[in-house]
This record gives sequence, C-alpha cells and structure tokens, in this order.
Amino acid sequence: MPSGKSEKLMDLAKRRGFIWPSFEIYGGVGGFYDFGPLGSLLKNKIIQKWREHYVLEEGFFEIDSPSVMPEEVLKASGHVDHFIDAMVECQKCGTALRVADVAREATGRDIEGMPKGEIEQFIERHKVRCPDCGGVLGKIFDFNAMFRTTIGPGSRKVGYLRPETAQGIFVDFNRLQRYARGRLPFGVVQIGRGYRNEISPRQGIIRLREFTMAEAEVFFDPEDPHHPKFKDAANEVLRLWLAGDQEKGKERLTEVTAEQAVKKKLVCNELMAYYLALTKRFLLDLGIPEGAIRFREQTKGQRAHYSAETWDAEVSTERFGWVEVAGLAYRTDYDLSGHAKFSGKDLTMFSADKKRKVLCHVVEPSYGIDRPLYCVLEHAYAEEKKRTYMRLKKSLAPIDVGVFPLLNRDGMPEKAREVCEKLKREGLMAVHDNSGSIGRRYARADEVGTPYCVTVDHKTLEDDTVTIRDRDTMTQIRVLVGGLHGVLRSLLRDEIKFGEAGAQVGAKRLPEEFRRDTP
Amino acid sequence: MPSGKSEKLMDLAKRRGFIWPSFEIYGGVGGFYDFGPLGSLLKNKIIQKWREHYVLEEGFFEIDSPSVMPEEVLKASGHVDHFIDAMVECQKCGTALRVADVAREATGRDIEGMPKGEIEQFIERHKVRCPDCGGVLGKIFDFNAMFRTTIGPGSRKVGYLRPETAQGIFVDFNRLQRYARGRLPFGVVQIGRGYRNEISPRQGIIRLREFTMAEAEVFFDPEDPHHPKFKDAANEVLRLWLAGDQEKGKERLTEVTAEQAVKKKLVCNELMAYYLALTKRFLLDLGIPEGAIRFREQTKGQRAHYSAETWDAEVSTERFGWVEVAGLAYRTDYDLSGHAKFSGKDLTMFSADKKRKVLCHVVEPSYGIDRPLYCVLEHAYAEEKKRTYMRLKKSLAPIDVGVFPLLNRDGMPEKAREVCEKLKREGLMAVHDNSGSIGRRYARADEVGTPYCVTVDHKTLEDDTVTIRDRDTMTQIRVLVGGLHGVLRSLLRDEIKFGEAGAQVGAKRLPEEFRRDTP
Repeated sequence: MPSGKSEKLMDLAKRRGFIWPSFEIYGGVGGFYDFGPLGSLLKNKIIQKWREHYVLEEGFFEIDSPSVMPEEVLKASGHVDHFIDAMVECQKCGTALRVADVAREATGRDIEGMPKGEIEQFIERHKVRCPDCGGVLGKIFDFNAMFRTTIGPGSRKVGYLRPETAQGIFVDFNRLQRYARGRLPFGVVQIGRGYRNEISPRQGIIRLREFTMAEAEVFFDPEDPHHPKFKDAANEVLRLWLAGDQEKGKERLTEVTAEQAVKKKLVCNELMAYYLALTKRFLLDLGIPEGAIRFREQTKGQRAHYSAETWDAEVSTERFGWVEVAGLAYRTDYDLSGHAKFSGKDLTMFSADKKRKVLCHVVEPSYGIDRPLYCVLEHAYAEEKKRTYMRLKKSLAPIDVGVFPLLNRDGMPEKAREVCEKLKREGLMAVHDNSGSIGRRYARADEVGTPYCVTVDHKTLEDDTVTIRDRDTMTQIRVLVGGLHGVLRSLLRDEIKFGEAGAQVGAKRLPEEFRRDTP
Repeated sequence: MPSGKSEKLMDLAKRRGFIWPSFEIYGGVGGFYDFGPLGSLLKNKIIQKWREHYVLEEGFFEIDSPSVMPEEVLKASGHVDHFIDAMVECQKCGTALRVADVAREATGRDIEGMPKGEIEQFIERHKVRCPDCGGVLGKIFDFNAMFRTTIGPGSRKVGYLRPETAQGIFVDFNRLQRYARGRLPFGVVQIGRGYRNEISPRQGIIRLREFTMAEAEVFFDPEDPHHPKFKDAANEVLRLWLAGDQEKGKERLTEVTAEQAVKKKLVCNELMAYYLALTKRFLLDLGIPEGAIRFREQTKGQRAHYSAETWDAEVSTERFGWVEVAGLAYRTDYDLSGHAKFSGKDLTMFSADKKRKVLCHVVEPSYGIDRPLYCVLEHAYAEEKKRTYMRLKKSLAPIDVGVFPLLNRDGMPEKAREVCEKLKREGLMAVHDNSGSIGRRYARADEVGTPYCVTVDHKTLEDDTVTIRDRDTMTQIRVLVGGLHGVLRSLLRDEIKFGEAGAQVGAKRLPEEFRRDTP
C-alpha cells in the first residue's frame, strides 16, 4: 500500500475508533494495541464467524482456561526451553534487538531457525549494524519470550503468561476425552489472549506482545487420520508454497485440491488438508479475496519445537507484504506425551473400536484474530474520487445502520432518534448522528463501512416513509417506517437485493403499501 | 447448602464439564479454575446478557485493551501504592496467609480496612493462630496483590497484570470522549480478564487469582449527575444494607425505590441509583430470585482507595453465604485527575452546554462473571425424588436441545443424527446422544439444564414426527420434523407455551399438519 494510503487507513482506524496504540497518554509501549468501540465490534464479529465454523459446524468443544500458567506446564510443553528468541544488544546505544528482525531489515533474508554460530557469521559477513544508531552489534544470546511472574507471595512459585491457549487444552485432555465420550477424532477450541514478550516490536499491530488467538486442537488416532466430512472439502483449491520451492528460492505456488494434496503427499494427512480448506473458507468469509490467500509450508528450521509439519496461512497486504494469519501444525503426540511424562498421568484413550489404547495425535489450526482484522480493514479500504469508504462484508460491519435527520429542525432529529431507538430494540446495531450536514453524515458512515443509512426528511413527517441508502452504490430507496426493520434485516442477510430494490423488496418480501421507490 | 448437596453440585459441575480446578494433572494451583465446554457456553451467555443491558440498551461503547499494563499507569491509578493485602506468615509452618481471611475464619469478624497496628492487637487479643498447624503468627506486612512482570528484555520496564479493566478505559479517555462527540453522560465498557495475586485462596471459584470482569465506566458532569432514562428505573425496589446499620451491628435491610434512595440521600446520586436498579434486573435475568439479592454499602474502611461510595451487589448462596457479585463505586474524578497529573495531559472536556471545562466524575458498575455463574448454578440446582436437574433459564442453558433415538436400531440413530445436524444448521445448539437407555439420556440432559429433548421413535419412521419433552414438567408433545425447528425456536423464546402445547403450537404458530398431540 503506497505509504500515503496506508497512513490514511491507520489515521482513519485511530480517529474513528477501530484501533490505536495502547497507553498513548504515557507515550505508548511497543507491541500493545487497543481496540476502540468500532474495533471491538469488528473483532467480536470475526470471533463469532470463527465460532460458526469451529463450534457450530465442526461441533468442537470450547473451553476457557487461565492465561497465567505454572512453570511445570510450560516446562512439559517445551516452552521454558524452546520458546526462545535470539537477541543481540547494540554495543553503542544499548538497544536490545531481535536478531532475525535486524537481519531481515538489513539483508531481506529470513534467518529464523538458523543456529547461533551461523547467525554470528551471517551478521559479520553482511555487516549488519544497529538500525537505530549504526553501532556494532554484540554477542548473541537467548531470550525466553514468555512474560514471567510469580504466583502468590514470595518468588518461589514461578508462572508465565501463556504463549498459546493450546496448553490449557492439553492439560485438560482427560476431562475432555470423557466429555467426548470416546468419539475420535474430536476437537477442542479456546479463544483468548496469548502473549509473547517481544524484544523490540516495530510492526504495529502485526507484531504484538499481547494478542487474541483462536486455537483448535483436533485429537485423532494416528492410525486413522480421517475427517468424517472430508468429501465436503475435497475439491477446495489450495495454493501451496512448498518448503522445497522456498529452499530452492522459487516463488512458484502449487495449486491443488485438498484431495490431491493428500494423494500427492504434499500435506501430512486428510485432517490437515481439511483444515487448510476450512481456513481458506474462513478467510473468504472475512472478505479476503482468493488471490490474496496462500499457504506457506514452514521449512524445518522455521518450525516450532512441537511441530512435524506447519502450514502458515498468509494474506497479502500492501503495507506488510504477506502476513501470517494462521498456523496449522501437525503437533503429533508431542504435547500429550510431554504432559504424561511430567505429570505421571495416563493420557491415553481407547481407539474407536475399543481395541487399542491410543496416545492421540494432534492437528492444530491456530488463528490470530488481530492480524486478520488488520487484513480485513486493508482489503476493505477504498478510495474513490469523491469519497473514502470501507467495503466491509455486511455481516462484519461494526454498525448495521446509521439514522440521520435530513435537517436539524421541524421535528426531524426527534423522529430520527425515535426510529433509531426502535431499530436498536429490534436488535440492530443502529447509530443516530445529527452533527454536520447530511453529506458529512453519509461520509462518516461510509468511512466505517456502515452498509445502510436511513434518512428522516420532510416527506417522513407527511407519510411516515424514510430513505435507505446503500453504501456501495449510493442509491436510495424509500420504505415505510413500519417495514423498515424487516427490510434492513433482509438486506443485511442478503435475502433481498438492493439493486432494483424497490421492486425486489415489494415483490419478494413486503406488501405493496410498505414500499415506495425514490422518485 | 447442606454440604452433601453442595458437594454433589460441584461434582456435577466437574463431571459434566461446567467448571473444574485448573492444572489438575499437576496437582492444581489455588485460585485458578477452567470453564469446560458447558461452562464456556454458559459463561458466554452470561456475558451476552450483560452486553444486551450495557451495550445495546444503554448504548455504551465497548473497548478491548491489554491485560499487561506498564507501571506508570498503575502508579497513577493508585494500585502500586494501595492495592495491598495485609499478610502474615505462620512462624511454625511458614504458610503465608491473608490476615483478613484468617481473622474472619477464627472470629467471624470482618477486619478489612483496619489499620495495621489495630490488626496486630486484634490477632493478639483473639489469639488467632495458623489455621493449618495452629502455630503463632508473625509480624504483619503489606503484599501488593498485582501480578508483576517485565516488558521486553532486562528487568527495567516493570509491568503488571491489570487488577481491573477500568484503567484501560481511563487512559483512553481523550479518544473516547471524541468518539462520544461531546455527549454527557457517556459510558464505556470492557469485558475481560482481571487479576489479583491472592495470598492463599481457599474458596474455590469465589476467590480467584484470574477472573473475568465486565466493567462499565459512566462519565458524567458532576454538576449534572442525571440519567436520561431514570424514570424507567425509578420504581425499582432496592434492598439496601446501609453502612450505618452494619456499623451498629444491625442486620436490617432498608427497602426503598431507586427514586426514594436518591431523595433520601441514601445513595450519592441518580446515576448510582439507576445502575443499582439495572444490576438488580441483570441478576433477575440470570434467574437469581429477588429475595436472594441485596445491596451492601461498604463502610469507609472497606472501600477501595478510589471510591467515595461503594455498593456491593450480593447474592445469597447456601455454600458461601452472601457473595459479592458486583461492586458499584462512585470513583469521583480520582482516576482522571491521577492520569492527568502523571501523564501531564489535559483530560477535561466541555460540559453539555459547551460553557465549562469539566473533569468528569465516574460511577462504575463493575461485575464479576465467574461468581454470578456459580450463583446461577447453585440457584438452578434442584433435586427431586427421582432426578437431579438444573432449572436454568432457557436463554442461559448451554445446550438448547438434546436429540436421541429411542432405541439404537431400525435406523433411529441415523435419523436422530440427521435431525440433530439439521437443527444445528438452523443455529440451535443441539446435541446428539445415543449412549445408554432413553431414561439415562433424559437424566443427562436434565442434569445440565437442557430445556428440550427430541426423541426419534418407531412412529418417526412411519410419519416423520418426533416427540419434544419439556425439562421442567417432563411432559411431551409430538410434532412433524419439518416444523421442529420453528417450534423449538418459539419455545426457547417463550413465544409459545409448552403447557397445553399441542393446541398452543397449532393455534398460534403452525399450520394444522405440523402439529400432533401426544396420545
């Protein structure tokens, strides 16, 4: 995104209450963002869409466990030993830096997962210097990226803020498998905060120290990695960037159906292919165009300590390039066997035929919520000659409808407020606005992606009709106030079309007296 | 609640997936609880109900800010200096104890807020000893009850886990008042985690170290503490336990309307009275009986450092006695003036008539979510001769409908699964259960408060009808599968009555062919 446009988007996001840096009056702290009133509404709607896929459709169980975890749990999960960032300090200005970030900024190369010795040679060879002052960088050391705290008084009981919600699910495995009553595969989700104590985050909402995650852990018998509804996803086309191609420096994407991906052994199993397809559908649901979605296979060095195969769902943005919005990892039995070992508890269950004891394997679709939200905003942001507007999907728009008086006199503001209150009582997110001119009010509504605006005008006072204006086409129709809620509800659900709306509304849904076309 | 019954409730809550202690396989950590699949559904529904009151009806803005906060913010808010628990260690076994808890356990007296010197005399006089080993207690010292951490590498940038979500709202005041465009009063809410690093929590889900809060900050002009919709709440009867009566040792409650409470100056202003009434309505909405709700005025010593007047909404429970589920505090301009001073920023805004600069005052209705959830479970729990069931409000029940085959043969399980999937696609939380006998399935559904159960039987295979069973009356009606979703939806919304349900269903909503009464 050309810098002017991207700055305008971020300015809009702050000014109108989507997102802004946290603790601004204290100068801000890197890696923390607030969601303002519109941002919270949007975030909640994205979470709701995710729940529709994973909780309603897939039938996964949702749990909610603490964000503070005792050290034992994260020792068993490998995070105390492996959730490490290679870090370096500038010998001149003392700034702490994440080596991989500095190296990428300076050379464009990705060195995630490179052994420490090689990194030092790399820094030397490419003469990577401090991006702040140009100073020489010191020795490289490990930094555990978990926030550390102590539980209770004294400093004996160490705790950490969870780096992922997943561990709260794994430690509950025995209760959860009883809840599933022997069914396999079964899935459990958790939506909540995750934390990563970044060294020096510089990328705004893309590199957060505290973020919202939505994770699903799919437990399955390793001898039976099948999804019961695989045929529904089999023909979904996936654009894969294979690890082999990345290692050879090839940008080429491999386009295959989910079914082919399994047959050609490009992905580890049917479950993984199914959830890649579901991830694509979720992103399409958010309004991300198909061409802006790809799945990148992590190379061995890039993968987390628990993963045997990882696919990053990436979305193309103008501002940050390709952004990882979800990671799908084949965690094998890494976590359950770790917790079984450290806790001394049996974490096996019976196979579907009750003949074998199984230590379940796990495929984990893990989504960020903040990054997709940014991608949604960027892909919705549109500038036209006369206006700026957000082409948000109607089902994601924070506000369903704006209600305005044409003029601030002759009882129009009172009537507009009354209409607005009525729509709110009917469950629509309606907002009343009577400041500035009618043109400014439409502009403000467009800017935040409000799909419909209702205007109370002179005619309203005569015949109790109002206009509805469509965000994308800027065309208007006129309907009776009595039928307004029903029309809006149907429009928002795409049950009727606005296009030749008067006629459509009349023909499909409303009795003749509820409909009037704009003259 | 007689101990046997309360144990049965907690056993049910763990066994069926409502709540259980966190990190059980590692022996648990005091003060942390997980919400299992049913508990999460219930929790989300309680949050949803709260949003209906505060976000939809009151029109408050919701924001979402980080749970990790830098020290400056909590220095300005007074929490670094005043969020303190008086603590003592047993000189024999070394256990750390919260003085107020030990004193209450030993003497039944509440010493919250008592000065340190007096506490030592109190301990001496009443011979309070270690509850674990009977040892003598040592000197009393202060323990800051915030979880402490560091942000970024090094230990220079101190941060804390927020003790309340409110501070995230106060530091955003300038952005929020611009969003409100000069309207006063205006309200902002936040729902999320709060943390209190309890010394030695012993009361299960009532004393958590990590909890979910829903807080509302109502900003108003101190010269105009009126609520625009006060008349809607004016006649709500409030049962108040006045601070004066508590200090005199009197148990008597004062029953007044919200309007009288203001006129008699029992509460500080109209806004406080309005939100006391709203709190009562919210609790009634959760199914808490009116007689189990009271508002206790905190005495001066009990109040938090920021509050000039605090009312605790308390719910009577058999297990824990009266439990505080919400606190309504008159925070005055304490927070905004603190942040203005520490940040050096102007946090005033114009009065409604634009003639004065105002430093807003704040009335804060602050709710826990976990404690009300426990109260809901306890008040819903019912034992009858033949069964145990949860009389949950239908709108709160985690599962809307159970779908069962009468027998596991003749195609009934397949049909039941098909019916269940269809209901799920229509947006109902439906669960299919085919293990055990039909009686066991009803019992399992009753135990978790599922309002309706649908059974596929021999007749279904002949004429495509199923039975619906009502949880509370255990009576049944028979309807066509084609009309099932509509009937259930209407029943769940209380749009039709189950009582003489066949007739009602037919008369009010469904064409004749969709209805059949049980023979």
